[in-house]
Amino acid sequence: MNYPGNIKKEYKKIVTHSNRGMGLEELINQSNLYYLEEDIAVIYKKPTPITIVDASFDSHGRVITKAYFKEPSTLDYNGIYKGKYIDFDAKETQNKTSFPLSNLHDHQYEHIKKVIAHGGISFLIISMNGIVYYLDGYDIIEFINNNDRKSIPYSYIQEKGYVIDKKIRPRLDYIKVIDKIYFKGD
Amino acid sequence: MNYPGNIKKEYKKIVTHSNRGMGLEELINQSNLYYLEEDIAVIYKKPTPITIVDASFDSHGRVITKAYFKEPSTLDYNGIYKGKYIDFDAKETQNKTSFPLSNLHDHQYEHIKKVIAHGGISFLIISMNGIVYYLDGYDIIEFINNNDRKSIPYSYIQEKGYVIDKKIRPRLDYIKVIDKIYFKGD
Repeated sequence: MNYPGNIKKEYKKIVTHSNRGMGLEELINQSNLYYLEEDIAVIYKKPTPITIVDASFDSHGRVITKAYFKEPSTLDYNGIYKGKYIDFDAKETQNKTSFPLSNLHDHQYEHIKKVIAHGGISFLIISMNGIVYYLDGYDIIEFINNNDRKSIPYSYIQEKGYVIDKKIRPRLDYIKVIDKIYFKGD
Repeated sequence: MNYPGNIKKEYKKIVTHSNRGMGLEELINQSNLYYLEEDIAVIYKKPTPITIVDASFDSHGRVITKAYFKEPSTLDYNGIYKGKYIDFDAKETQNKTSFPLSNLHDHQYEHIKKVIAHGGISFLIISMNGIVYYLDGYDIIEFINNNDRKSIPYSYIQEKGYVIDKKIRPRLDYIKVIDKIYFKGD
């Protein structure tokens, strides 16, 4: 069967809207798959933590019939790049003037500090005002240490953050930013 | 209130049976908690990957009402120690003479190879014949490269592996083995 209308629509969607409509998480997952396939880095999203209350068996095997979502103690993504431990999270906000720190749980913030203290690279990928930023853990810690504020102003993200290129492959080239900050000499 | 009987029983349990009865996963989780609390390493177990089929809301919030377990593409534990990326899995076998390689999925084996190629430390913690062994990823790769066998003989694990000390804190001191192999000069 032919669906010329759909094909055209799909084509148009890919060409003119590129990454628009794809969620931030999906863009990162596709980027990680690219890095993995090209043998650049080994980075995965952690599964969502849940608490299983009830489970049984059906024709497909063991089936969970009741479970709740748990708040994660760590960040969503981790792995290895050029021998370095990488640990980050992706956050989106509709807020135009500041990034609400309620988006970053206390234990997630503690986790960022621990990872950096042990020699790893930790950061946030923040989607805001239509731009995707890399904000390094050092700059997040510095801001929180010196400010008694509940949100990071957009101006701080613009000043300290790095704009992540939106491309076809990888969708979001955040490794390029890591290279710029941590592997300048390479 | 006093429960002398219970206390004695508990004491006896700790002293005479030590770690017996506690599953391998629980021993590792407690060891990781110890390493985290003592600021030695930051290592977590990844949540079990699931595919959510149905979800709704109840008085506790969003509730998963149907989900299946997915086969993991990576190993269960990862994190950072002395700046190094750490990635491993825990396996138990009742088999006394060999470790069946059916316990290690193909993509888990590929993952071990990738982690090592990118400069990380990868290994298996194998519980077998009442002893807990550390078997380094290099030795697993070497065995599989040179043998057309479906299992690793116990003699190979005894020869190449390291016995992990069972203690109170941490329960399984696998970091001590990492120190021995990778941080000899420290």
